[in-house]
Amino acid sequence: MRVERDFLGEVELPDQVYYGVQTMRAVQNFPITGHKLDKEFIIALAIVKKAAAKANMKTGRMPTHIGAAIVEAAVEIMAGKWHEQFVVDAIQGGAGTSMNMNTNEVIANRALEILGRQKGDYEYLSPNNHVNMAQSTNDVIPTAIRIASIRKATRLYNELVLLAESLNRKADEFSQVLKMGRTHLQDAVPITLGQEFAAYAAGVKRAAKRVQRAMQFLLAINMGATAVGTGLNAEPEYIEEVVRQICWLTDEHFISAPNLVDATQNTDELAEFSSTLKICALSLSKMANDLRLMASGPKCGFNEITLPAMQPGSSIMPGKVNPVIPEMVNQVAFQVVGNDQAISLAVEAGQFELNVMEPVIAYNLFNSLTILTNAVIILNNRCIMNIVANDSRCQQMVDDSIGVITALLPHIGYETASLIAKEAIASSRPVKEIIKAKDLIASDRLEIILAPGEMTKPGIAGKQYLSSTKEDIA
Amino acid sequence: MRVERDFLGEVELPDQVYYGVQTMRAVQNFPITGHKLDKEFIIALAIVKKAAAKANMKTGRMPTHIGAAIVEAAVEIMAGKWHEQFVVDAIQGGAGTSMNMNTNEVIANRALEILGRQKGDYEYLSPNNHVNMAQSTNDVIPTAIRIASIRKATRLYNELVLLAESLNRKADEFSQVLKMGRTHLQDAVPITLGQEFAAYAAGVKRAAKRVQRAMQFLLAINMGATAVGTGLNAEPEYIEEVVRQICWLTDEHFISAPNLVDATQNTDELAEFSSTLKICALSLSKMANDLRLMASGPKCGFNEITLPAMQPGSSIMPGKVNPVIPEMVNQVAFQVVGNDQAISLAVEAGQFELNVMEPVIAYNLFNSLTILTNAVIILNNRCIMNIVANDSRCQQMVDDSIGVITALLPHIGYETASLIAKEAIASSRPVKEIIKAKDLIASDRLEIILAPGEMTKPGIAGKQYLSSTKEDIA
Amino acid sequence: MRVERDFLGEVELPDQVYYGVQTMRAVQNFPITGHKLDKEFIIALAIVKKAAAKANMKTGRMPTHIGAAIVEAAVEIMAGKWHEQFVVDAIQGGAGTSMNMNTNEVIANRALEILGRQKGDYEYLSPNNHVNMAQSTNDVIPTAIRIASIRKATRLYNELVLLAESLNRKADEFSQVLKMGRTHLQDAVPITLGQEFAAYAAGVKRAAKRVQRAMQFLLAINMGATAVGTGLNAEPEYIEEVVRQICWLTDEHFISAPNLVDATQNTDELAEFSSTLKICALSLSKMANDLRLMASGPKCGFNEITLPAMQPGSSIMPGKVNPVIPEMVNQVAFQVVGNDQAISLAVEAGQFELNVMEPVIAYNLFNSLTILTNAVIILNNRCIMNIVANDSRCQQMVDDSIGVITALLPHIGYETASLIAKEAIASSRPVKEIIKAKDLIASDRLEIILAPGEMTKPGIAGKQYLSSTKEDIA
Amino acid sequence: MRVERDFLGEVELPDQVYYGVQTMRAVQNFPITGHKLDKEFIIALAIVKKAAAKANMKTGRMPTHIGAAIVEAAVEIMAGKWHEQFVVDAIQGGAGTSMNMNTNEVIANRALEILGRQKGDYEYLSPNNHVNMAQSTNDVIPTAIRIASIRKATRLYNELVLLAESLNRKADEFSQVLKMGRTHLQDAVPITLGQEFAAYAAGVKRAAKRVQRAMQFLLAINMGATAVGTGLNAEPEYIEEVVRQICWLTDEHFISAPNLVDATQNTDELAEFSSTLKICALSLSKMANDLRLMASGPKCGFNEITLPAMQPGSSIMPGKVNPVIPEMVNQVAFQVVGNDQAISLAVEAGQFELNVMEPVIAYNLFNSLTILTNAVIILNNRCIMNIVANDSRCQQMVDDSIGVITALLPHIGYETASLIAKEAIASSRPVKEIIKAKDLIASDRLEIILAPGEMTKPGIAGKQYLSSTKEDIA
Repeated sequence: MRVERDFLGEVELPDQVYYGVQTMRAVQNFPITGHKLDKEFIIALAIVKKAAAKANMKTGRMPTHIGAAIVEAAVEIMAGKWHEQFVVDAIQGGAGTSMNMNTNEVIANRALEILGRQKGDYEYLSPNNHVNMAQSTNDVIPTAIRIASIRKATRLYNELVLLAESLNRKADEFSQVLKMGRTHLQDAVPITLGQEFAAYAAGVKRAAKRVQRAMQFLLAINMGATAVGTGLNAEPEYIEEVVRQICWLTDEHFISAPNLVDATQNTDELAEFSSTLKICALSLSKMANDLRLMASGPKCGFNEITLPAMQPGSSIMPGKVNPVIPEMVNQVAFQVVGNDQAISLAVEAGQFELNVMEPVIAYNLFNSLTILTNAVIILNNRCIMNIVANDSRCQQMVDDSIGVITALLPHIGYETASLIAKEAIASSRPVKEIIKAKDLIASDRLEIILAPGEMTKPGIAGKQYLSSTKEDIA
Repeated sequence: MRVERDFLGEVELPDQVYYGVQTMRAVQNFPITGHKLDKEFIIALAIVKKAAAKANMKTGRMPTHIGAAIVEAAVEIMAGKWHEQFVVDAIQGGAGTSMNMNTNEVIANRALEILGRQKGDYEYLSPNNHVNMAQSTNDVIPTAIRIASIRKATRLYNELVLLAESLNRKADEFSQVLKMGRTHLQDAVPITLGQEFAAYAAGVKRAAKRVQRAMQFLLAINMGATAVGTGLNAEPEYIEEVVRQICWLTDEHFISAPNLVDATQNTDELAEFSSTLKICALSLSKMANDLRLMASGPKCGFNEITLPAMQPGSSIMPGKVNPVIPEMVNQVAFQVVGNDQAISLAVEAGQFELNVMEPVIAYNLFNSLTILTNAVIILNNRCIMNIVANDSRCQQMVDDSIGVITALLPHIGYETASLIAKEAIASSRPVKEIIKAKDLIASDRLEIILAPGEMTKPGIAGKQYLSSTKEDIA
Repeated sequence: MRVERDFLGEVELPDQVYYGVQTMRAVQNFPITGHKLDKEFIIALAIVKKAAAKANMKTGRMPTHIGAAIVEAAVEIMAGKWHEQFVVDAIQGGAGTSMNMNTNEVIANRALEILGRQKGDYEYLSPNNHVNMAQSTNDVIPTAIRIASIRKATRLYNELVLLAESLNRKADEFSQVLKMGRTHLQDAVPITLGQEFAAYAAGVKRAAKRVQRAMQFLLAINMGATAVGTGLNAEPEYIEEVVRQICWLTDEHFISAPNLVDATQNTDELAEFSSTLKICALSLSKMANDLRLMASGPKCGFNEITLPAMQPGSSIMPGKVNPVIPEMVNQVAFQVVGNDQAISLAVEAGQFELNVMEPVIAYNLFNSLTILTNAVIILNNRCIMNIVANDSRCQQMVDDSIGVITALLPHIGYETASLIAKEAIASSRPVKEIIKAKDLIASDRLEIILAPGEMTKPGIAGKQYLSSTKEDIA
Repeated sequence: MRVERDFLGEVELPDQVYYGVQTMRAVQNFPITGHKLDKEFIIALAIVKKAAAKANMKTGRMPTHIGAAIVEAAVEIMAGKWHEQFVVDAIQGGAGTSMNMNTNEVIANRALEILGRQKGDYEYLSPNNHVNMAQSTNDVIPTAIRIASIRKATRLYNELVLLAESLNRKADEFSQVLKMGRTHLQDAVPITLGQEFAAYAAGVKRAAKRVQRAMQFLLAINMGATAVGTGLNAEPEYIEEVVRQICWLTDEHFISAPNLVDATQNTDELAEFSSTLKICALSLSKMANDLRLMASGPKCGFNEITLPAMQPGSSIMPGKVNPVIPEMVNQVAFQVVGNDQAISLAVEAGQFELNVMEPVIAYNLFNSLTILTNAVIILNNRCIMNIVANDSRCQQMVDDSIGVITALLPHIGYETASLIAKEAIASSRPVKEIIKAKDLIASDRLEIILAPGEMTKPGIAGKQYLSSTKEDIA
């Protein structure tokens, strides 16, 4: 046991732990979710601490041997060590002071150890005076959230690109699979399954680009803002250097936010980033819904595609296979929408010079990034890549359909076409047959106009048979 | 290593694990959140399995020695054993089939062990044929969600009641602390700090009652519904008995839902339950905001109360103490609102005979219950109980205020009073002084009318001085 | 033109308008939505004013002839007159002061007219001193919101009951229509269309009851709370009488809230009411989704039911008929969910003695009530009542399906059944045929076990053929 | 009365109305919100129709005299005529078919009139065959939504820029007003009121840029997609020309979406646009909250600024002035958040080739744009521009505060500073006095270090007095 103290009194700590009195108080104050900090967040905090130590050494405020030990400790954390020493809850009061102090204390104690000192020997190397030198929770936490978000978002971006590529490959594979297009869940006009997958690919690619774009807006960080953004206790030389160090450590183009007061109190860029994830989730959910609909059956549904079977689908219905991967995607999407809602409320709750709700913002942002990325990987590898088209079933539905009548619109007008459609449904006779019986269009022309493949491309089928003068349509 | 197989093929499992092939497939299919099932959910699943085994023994379908082993295994899980064997992710496709099968497999293998058999010897005792006998994921999961929710909600209810009691004790303690009431954040008329805390207590008590009421609507369970609610493979005698067993095991008055098809596909009662938690969260957040406002300062804010100092408030500003506990409550509230949003989307996404999104519903419901309960405990013990009123500061603000002029309304009318108020603000002279200078009301009467304590009670101060005929006010 | 003044200065008003200076200021301050107050809200405000005038006459503060004129003016508004004089925007700052003053001014000027006086002759009869006597915006608005909500909710309740009855009638009509039940959009086991509609009816009935229940919690009103809930300037005798008058005028059992401070600042009961509407919307949306799925086709979808054709479905595709009524229901549901979100944020934003966000709460609450009620009426009259079942199509799908194999589970076990299901899908041969070919169950027994109608009821089909000893299943 | 018919039967219409049978059916089917289409939406629909007629004339399908009449009718609508003929409800089933047909019918009948024909003489000039030529609801509505959104968003953008400019002017005006910065609502360190307003300006400017950016993503339109995006019945020449015409008519750089199938079914860009509005709303709400806090008082609050008095604040409390404009902004923000939620649900609900929920998306998007724009105008003109700083009050709070001790951190270390802060609070003695009494820092140095103005700039006050070697701090 060692004893540490703050201005509230003394606290006993087990000898082996690297965190200190302030971390312990936070553990006692916030036994809320049971979830610890995201691994990437811990790494980002260590990056900030290393960068600050380097900058403080450069400006001469930080003694070199102290700074070097801090850097070494931070590097260990960046490499994955000591993460178990980050014991504060992900949701906590105090704008992240407890996260920051947990980091400061672990680094201080590990640095003391490196220097051959005892843990807790803060007069020699202090969590506040040295590890936190020229920093405040109010610049450390917003900065670390951005670093971690960008690292996590890069992975999401990459996986979205891979998913879009898979969808495009499927689009090629399915380019000749003619099927009925549906609007309002009602038979519309023919389309190819390839066109549908290309549309999904386009949506996913746009989501990827949107994530990439939103990442740019996270590059403005507020290191040096210190307590309220005015830069009290942070020299301009330090500010410049700490940002440079962070760029070097992350290989990203971070910049110092043009207005540090603004950057310390406003969190709209985090809301924007979360919105981007939400919109990505909505698009994935729409696609997942389509996949589940197309795979409905096997006997009593659309049955246009077959999803790869990933697990038995029922504990009671033998042989049942369910679209479990798309269902998972839907649920992840709902969670991301919910997370975005929590973030919206937190963003609105900023007051004066700070938004103290940043812990819950970070928690939801990281959660959304994690589960979206995982969902995209699984969706790609365990579903999309192995979808099989049921060609003949698709073709048969086109053959049965009435929607093909739309191609006749330029030839016979909306009203006549409507009556034929109505008759086709009532009598269950094919459109083509009714047209022929009524002798509305010559048989050979009809074959050309109603060729379903033609309907999947822009233009008027059988345009050559349209009455040629501009006037006579009326 | 042992090998298990399902209709998709073979899977290798480490010898020591109690779960089987279907759990393993789920682990591979759903590496999403990294969060496992809630402890109470695991216990609830075991309760369902024990109850079903008992009921199946009673109807004679389940051989006694098999049933007894299942019961024994389930009882162990209810007591907290084998929870580490529940390895499926909390968010999963398949409506919870993987959770159900994880339970079935762990119980089956533990039961086999109890019977002196080898794990995986499913021909003797099978996860599907025996542990899941007369059940489906589609009745097991909705039932277990309700059991776990009620167990967790009971704790929340108890903690809310304790919080309301603390608030009421504070209301008594502060009953003589006169302070300015505020509307629109503007000075209004006097109130006591005790009245404010009594209002908080009333809100919390109402939240507690609302939780209690919503729990009632979770008592209708759909055991025996099996796959789609029609009760296929579940005999009426079994249905009756399994519900009776669950009542006995939980000490709650569960009933068989009057329409099992409805109860299997509709999840509105879970949405209702979540709404209840959301509303509780909103009330707590409003109160937390008030506490933070009243404690603002210490020098440049309202400073009407002092919250207990729980931890140093800043890594850079020495001596700063922040309202970290209310801030945590705000963040928990935002999370609960977000969780409710995720649940709303999932509830809407039910299709036909089932809502396959129940895993994400359960995940958010349990998360909301957990964090709300924790937040209430901490708020009570680490904040409310030790709040101190700054009496003299409160009194001083009442003395300085202009809002007391409202008490003069029945005596001098709205228009005259408005002009005096305007003059008081412009001149910084007390209202009383201006009235006296204008000789509008006799001095002794004025003291009675403007006694601030009187203003905190219903009625017209100095009513005896109101002009007595009904007509002359106009 | 007439000129009115307040402590901010003078304002010119057209001669004919009944509203006054404060209304005019609000019109200038809040040109936001362009939407005026809900008709029922205006009526509720008039009810409050009449009740207050009566109560003030009873306590003797209000001169009788003044009170009588106020009552007469209020009664006219309750009957639908002068609503065009309520010109303030539905969203407004000030907690509803502008709504309250718009009401006070219209009533005052109309009452002056009734008394043969000029509009604006407020020295004789004043909007503040007389019409608003013993009231504050902070008790008038919360009370009027509750009165209007209950009036509107009663209509919603009635329409939900009618919808549930229609659904139940359809359930009867469709009780013999055998169809495939679906879970995960995959073929499950047979069910009747009647069972499905009965489940919808049950959900709607529960929604109705939930609305009815939530209405009870709106019955506690805070008249007499005045500014901050302490009852300043409101005598107990007045409080008692004003509530009694409101009961009499509305025929509802309103009570005085047990804690007026609480009732003035907390709006959780409005959040609860809105949640109730949200849950109703979610249930309706789920049903609308099912209807759209079942009606998908006509050739390339499920085509199990036909919805009544309400309008041509496409401007380009002749003869297309879309499920426009359920689609409208979905959109109304989304709006109600959004409205509930706005309300949640507003409820959280209460501060100290008041929630100044009540206008936006009222706006969304009334909007949700209006559109939900309209949607339910239209859904019932223009869709549900005239749905036609496509019996033979439903039957055919049951005949084609594999899910019936679930009924064999108690007879041949999960593993064997899974293999047969797999074979049936792969070979497109009927389950029955495969069983026979394998000679697993005698042919006559098989007919009994696989009778689809039996599967729609609880119990084990062919239970008499189950091996009789408890032991031999293993 | 005239009679029109569609394939569902006949409908009677008053002679004078320009809409026809399909509009009338929609009126009967959708009496939901009572809100009609946004004025800009009607204009956008007319723009689309004019552009399509021009393009169809160019490709030769549209007879010139018919096309000319359509163009003339459309131009009238663009100029604000006939808007009262757009009678369909804003929320409607059918993906906007009713809006599209309302437009088609009004234009057709007005064009017939222009041509000297009778209304309803559709054989001569038809709503479907001519006005809707080569179009579908599924390309007309998404395109018109984008046109109207951009027109409305341009106004919002302009108003946000004006607001940012006003805030910046106030920042200049308040650049010398020293006040306490607050974090966690607790006294932090000094800042200037100008710095705070500059931060608000920065946030608003960023919101403006975000709106501008999101507008770019609305420029890709899907004209020519027709029913499902394949371009059936739309020739490439027509597609090119219709987009060119729309650019010309709107003076915006619209392009043809690269994948029309994608552009017809996916609505993520509308979700993105709505998110942008939501984030703008959150930033405005945060600022509104700060303004209300800073203006709290006048006697018992922060009272750092005075907002312009816009209306009497209470019907019962004389002389009370409330921050009604910021309160309105908060409520508008809550509404926009709710609207975004409704849009999110609608976006997720797209199925296959179309998102039929576009009406509710458009309704909420336009509502958000309208109310946000109005709120920004009012906020700027009726609040921000006339805010007055209460300089001496601000200065006095800085003088009283303890937070200035942060400037001593580099000189005396965190632990010593904490103890002094604690003593200052307990004893109510100024920090400076305690330091002097303890003789920790020479008096002249102390004056320099604790100069509050210095604290509002980056750097270490009194850096020259810091012990000079790098080592000795430890």
